Amino acid sequence: MSSEGRGLRADAVRNRRLALEAATALLAESGAPLTVEAIATRAGLGAGTVVRAFGGKGALIDAAVSGLLGPMVERGRDLLGQGRPLDALRAFLAELIAFQSAHHGVNDHLGGLDLPETARLRAELEAVVRELVVRARAEGSIRADLDPGLATTLIGETAFAVARAASPGLAEAYLAVMIDGLRPPV
Amino acid sequence: MSSEGRGLRADAVRNRRLALEAATALLAESGAPLTVEAIATRAGLGAGTVVRAFGGKGALIDAAVSGLLGPMVERGRDLLGQGRPLDALRAFLAELIAFQSAHHGVNDHLGGLDLPETARLRAELEAVVRELVVRARAEGSIRADLDPGLATTLIGETAFAVARAASPGLAEAYLAVMIDGLRPPV
Repeated sequence: MSSEGRGLRADAVRNRRLALEAATALLAESGAPLTVEAIATRAGLGAGTVVRAFGGKGALIDAAVSGLLGPMVERGRDLLGQGRPLDALRAFLAELIAFQSAHHGVNDHLGGLDLPETARLRAELEAVVRELVVRARAEGSIRADLDPGLATTLIGETAFAVARAASPGLAEAYLAVMIDGLRPPV
Repeated sequence: MSSEGRGLRADAVRNRRLALEAATALLAESGAPLTVEAIATRAGLGAGTVVRAFGGKGALIDAAVSGLLGPMVERGRDLLGQGRPLDALRAFLAELIAFQSAHHGVNDHLGGLDLPETARLRAELEAVVRELVVRARAEGSIRADLDPGLATTLIGETAFAVARAASPGLAEAYLAVMIDGLRPPV
């Protein structure tokens, strides 16, 4: 490859990195619109350059969101092997709520985009919660009258609502009530 | 008043009723857009007639939503005087979730409108939940480590999320877990 070709490739890699950093920063800002224009402005690039760097807006957002979700999935997998399942579930929910509160954009403004890697990682997050529920139920620390799939949906919907509300003390109150409520009734 | 004047007034009363019925029906339909045009089409009236009948879109929506919320507030007040507070809270939440699931529009599509009566009734619904929480806590059936205001927010946010999800069996699972989780830990 000519030195000119290497220069072009280095530019493309740099633009990709700048666009990804800008999208990731915008995802951490509540209410920030995740448009190509906003990403380009933040990155100090042209809108066309941003789109070309990833081949499209969807691919850029998918890379930014999955870059954030990936470590959460890793963390969940680690917790699967640590301590008692209900304690691990509580710890994982606390981290998921804190993450979600700090990254509203991960769920807002993403409608209508094709985000295959994001969808895969979200399914994995749900699978980790479900596996923790199944293990906790098997050892008798979650009530037997609750279907594991239903419990997983309940946890997902309510934890997400608590994260969105982002009200002081609410996450701690939720975890105390939810975890005790999941235990077998006395 | 002339017979012509009475005829005009009778028309205005009829248009008001038709517009209100149409708006109420649309509020019960998930995802239905609550626009003046949609209300007018459903009512078989012109858009201008609908707006004139109430003096504005906001006043029409406020009348339709508060017509739905009013009976829920009444029901809550009745429950305040019946049986043990935690049982009454459970019964009220079950009815609120069923109502909310059947009337998505009561919370969607209402942004940016001035709805004073709706706001007043929503505050009353929250006040009923809070009063049930305070009474249940006073008699020792809700955990003392939970601030009543925080408990009310927690119940409001999570019950709303469960209603929105409208997933089979989820409301029952939520009520079982939430009510048991609110009880004092053993």
